[in-house]
Amino acid sequence: MSEKIKYGVVGYKGRLGGEVVNVFLENNHELVYKFDVDGESQREKPSVIIDCSLPDVFGKTIKTVIENNIPLILATTGLSKEQLTKLKEISTVIPVVQSYNYSIGIQILLKLTQIAHEKLPDWDIEIEETHHRFKKDKPSGTAKMIENIFKDKQVNVSSLRLGNVPGDHIVSFGGLGEVLSIKHVATSRRTFAEGILKSAEFIVKKKNGLFSFTDVIFGD
Amino acid sequence: MSEKIKYGVVGYKGRLGGEVVNVFLENNHELVYKFDVDGESQREKPSVIIDCSLPDVFGKTIKTVIENNIPLILATTGLSKEQLTKLKEISTVIPVVQSYNYSIGIQILLKLTQIAHEKLPDWDIEIEETHHRFKKDKPSGTAKMIENIFKDKQVNVSSLRLGNVPGDHIVSFGGLGEVLSIKHVATSRRTFAEGILKSAEFIVKKKNGLFSFTDVIFGD
Amino acid sequence: MSEKIKYGVVGYKGRLGGEVVNVFLENNHELVYKFDVDGESQREKPSVIIDCSLPDVFGKTIKTVIENNIPLILATTGLSKEQLTKLKEISTVIPVVQSYNYSIGIQILLKLTQIAHEKLPDWDIEIEETHHRFKKDKPSGTAKMIENIFKDKQVNVSSLRLGNVPGDHIVSFGGLGEVLSIKHVATSRRTFAEGILKSAEFIVKKKNGLFSFTDVIFGD
Amino acid sequence: MSEKIKYGVVGYKGRLGGEVVNVFLENNHELVYKFDVDGESQREKPSVIIDCSLPDVFGKTIKTVIENNIPLILATTGLSKEQLTKLKEISTVIPVVQSYNYSIGIQILLKLTQIAHEKLPDWDIEIEETHHRFKKDKPSGTAKMIENIFKDKQVNVSSLRLGNVPGDHIVSFGGLGEVLSIKHVATSRRTFAEGILKSAEFIVKKKNGLFSFTDVIFGD
Repeated sequence: MSEKIKYGVVGYKGRLGGEVVNVFLENNHELVYKFDVDGESQREKPSVIIDCSLPDVFGKTIKTVIENNIPLILATTGLSKEQLTKLKEISTVIPVVQSYNYSIGIQILLKLTQIAHEKLPDWDIEIEETHHRFKKDKPSGTAKMIENIFKDKQVNVSSLRLGNVPGDHIVSFGGLGEVLSIKHVATSRRTFAEGILKSAEFIVKKKNGLFSFTDVIFGD
Repeated sequence: MSEKIKYGVVGYKGRLGGEVVNVFLENNHELVYKFDVDGESQREKPSVIIDCSLPDVFGKTIKTVIENNIPLILATTGLSKEQLTKLKEISTVIPVVQSYNYSIGIQILLKLTQIAHEKLPDWDIEIEETHHRFKKDKPSGTAKMIENIFKDKQVNVSSLRLGNVPGDHIVSFGGLGEVLSIKHVATSRRTFAEGILKSAEFIVKKKNGLFSFTDVIFGD
Repeated sequence: MSEKIKYGVVGYKGRLGGEVVNVFLENNHELVYKFDVDGESQREKPSVIIDCSLPDVFGKTIKTVIENNIPLILATTGLSKEQLTKLKEISTVIPVVQSYNYSIGIQILLKLTQIAHEKLPDWDIEIEETHHRFKKDKPSGTAKMIENIFKDKQVNVSSLRLGNVPGDHIVSFGGLGEVLSIKHVATSRRTFAEGILKSAEFIVKKKNGLFSFTDVIFGD
Repeated sequence: MSEKIKYGVVGYKGRLGGEVVNVFLENNHELVYKFDVDGESQREKPSVIIDCSLPDVFGKTIKTVIENNIPLILATTGLSKEQLTKLKEISTVIPVVQSYNYSIGIQILLKLTQIAHEKLPDWDIEIEETHHRFKKDKPSGTAKMIENIFKDKQVNVSSLRLGNVPGDHIVSFGGLGEVLSIKHVATSRRTFAEGILKSAEFIVKKKNGLFSFTDVIFGD
C-alpha cells in the first residue's frame, strides 16, 4: 500500500481530469488543489500537480509549480517545441514526468517489441492500428512510437477505421514457420488515469529530473 | 456416404494434384485416368476429369472432355478471356465447374459477408489479408473477391506480408458500439482438394452448364 | 429518414435508459413519458413504451401499456416464466418486442453462425467469450444463445475474464485445412440503445404480436 | 555468415529429421553422419549430432557421442527421468542442448510473458491454446510451460480443438481499461528445424554443459 498523496489537478473537469480524480480517490489520495475554467481553489500545498488540460494553460501551470516547488506530471498533448524545452529547463529544479500516452500496457508493448526485434532481427514486421471512424490522422501517434523502434528498417503500418473503437495496436513478427504478435486493446480512458497514478507515486520520491512514462514503468 | 466416382486428374504430379489424389482415395473414389509431363494413362473412362495443371494444357484437356463427353472441374489459375469463353461454350454440352479458389471456408466467408453487409449497410468496412513474404501482388485475389461484394462503396484493404503464412482474410464491420468480423485462416493446401471433392460429387449429377464453386456450396 | 416517434421510457435514469434517451434524441424522436424512482411524468400519449428497468416494475409497465393500448419494448433482463407468459398473452392485443440482448451485431453473429453451421455440419466448433473480471457467471448469456444453435452437438465454451472488457464473443469452425470464425466485440453500451431504436421503428407499424429482436433485424 | 558445420542426424528419415536436413543444407552445412531404421552411415566425424528420433534410441545415441566426444542436440520428446539424469551426467564432459520445443517464437513468447508479468503483477491472466482435433491431451505442453511462469497464481487455461491447426498459443493480461496479449502461431514444422540450426551454431563453440533452448536464444 502506498502512502497518501496530496495532489492537485489542472483541468479537473475534463474527461481525463475526471478519471484522474476518481482513480486517485479509490486509492485514498487527497485532492487539495484544483484549477479549471471555473477558477482555482486550494486547501493545502499539493505534493504533486497533474496537468490534464490544454497547451495554452501550460504557462500558468509552470508558474505555479516553480513558485511553489511542486513536482509536475504533464498529460497535455500537442505541446510546442518551446514548451518541451521549457520543461527540460525547469526539470533541473523540480521533477517532471511528461508523456503523450500514460497507458501502462502500451509501455509494456513498446518494451516487448524492442526485445522481440533484438532477438528476431530478420523476421518480417507488420504494424496495425485500429481506431474509431472519427480519427482523421493515419497512422496513430502510438503506431509511430512503435515504428520508431525499427530505426534500421522500413516497416509497413496498416490503419483501420471502424465504428468507435477506442484504439487497438498490433505488432507482428513473421518467421518461416511462425508468427509472433503483441497486441494492445484499450477498453476505456481509465487506463490513462492509472498510468498517471503510477507516475505520481514515482515522482513524489524524486528531487528533480525530466522523466518519460517509460522511466516510470521500467525505472530510470 | 457418396457413391464411388471413377475420376481422372490432369497434373496429378503437382502439389494440388497430389492432394486431390489423396483426398479422393480416402473417400474411396478411383483414379482411372491421369496425365502429366510423363505422359497419359487410362484404365477406364472417367466420370469426371479434374484439371489442376497450367493454362497451356487447357486445349488438350478441352479436347479430351469434349470427345469423350466427360464432366470437367477446372482448378487451373490464370486463364485467359478466350479460355473462359471457350469454357462457357462447351458447358452447353458438358457440365463444368470453374473457380480460382476451392476453399469451402472462403465460400462461406463470401456468403456471410454479403449477408452482413445487407443487414449493416451503414457500418464501416475493413478488409485485411495476410500472406507469406514471397507473395508479391497486393491485395490477394481472394481479397478482391471480397471487395467486389461492396460494389456501392470504396473499401480499404490492408495487406500484410509475414513469414510463410498460407493465407488469412478478415472482413470487419464497425458500428458505434460494436465490431463484427469474419475471419478465414488457411492451414494447409488440403482444403482446396476437399473443395474439388465436393465439386466432383456435385458435377457427376449434372447434364451440362457452367458452375462456380459458389454454386457447388450454396446450390445453383 | 424515419418519422418522428413520441416515446416513453421506464427506467430513464438507469445506464441503458440514459443511452436510449440520447440515441432517440439524436434521431429527433420525442420523449413524452418517463417513469423512474422519482416518479412518473407524461406530456402526451406515447406511441411506444420502452422498459429498461427491473423485473419488479414489470406489473406496473404491463398495466400502463394495456390500459392505454401502447406498443411495448421490453429490455428488462431476468424475467420469470410467469412474466414471459404474461407477455405472450398481452401480445394478442398489443405488439411487443422482447429480448435479452439488443445488440445488432450479436443478432448478425447468431444468423451467420446458423448459416455457417448448416453449410459446414462436420466441422469442429468452439465458442469463446471474454468479459470483465467482475462477471461471475460462466458462460455468458450470449454464449448460451450461440450454444443453442448447435442443438445436435456438444460444443465446448471457453470463458475468459480480463480487466474490464465489455464483452467479446467468437464462434470458430475448424475443417481440415482451414478455420472460419465470426467475432463480435462490444465497445460500448450505446449499441443496445441503437438496437432499441430499430425495435421502436419496427413496432410502431405493427398491430399486435410477440417479436424477438431477431424478428426486428431479419424480418418476421 | 556462420562457418560450415559437419553434422549428423539420428532419425534423419522422420518428419523433423527431414526438415533439419533441408534447413541445414540451405545454410551450407554438411551432413556427414546419419542413422535411422535402415542403418548407419558415416563419411566423417561430425562436430555435432542431432537426435530427432525416439526415446528408445537414446542409449545408442549417448554411446556414440560419448565415445567420440561429439556435442549433442536432443530433440526427442517424452524422455524418462533416468534419461534426463543421464544427460546431465554426460554434460560434464560434452555440451548438450535439450528441449521439448525448438520454436524460436515460443522462446520469445515465454520471455516476453515473464517480463509482462513482472511489470503487471496485478493484472488478470488468461492462457489459450488451439490445436488440431487429433490432439487428445489438454492443455498442450507449451501451455504448461507458459503456466509455469505464473508460479504465484492460479491461471485459467482454455484449450480449443479445431481442424488441423498446427498450434496457436495466446497469453493475455487484463487491466482496468486495457488488454495486452502475446500470441504465437505455428505455420509449419520448419520452425523447429530453424531452432535446431541455432542450437547447432551455439553448441559447436561450447566445451561442455547442459543447455536449454532458452539458453541458446537468450544466452547462458
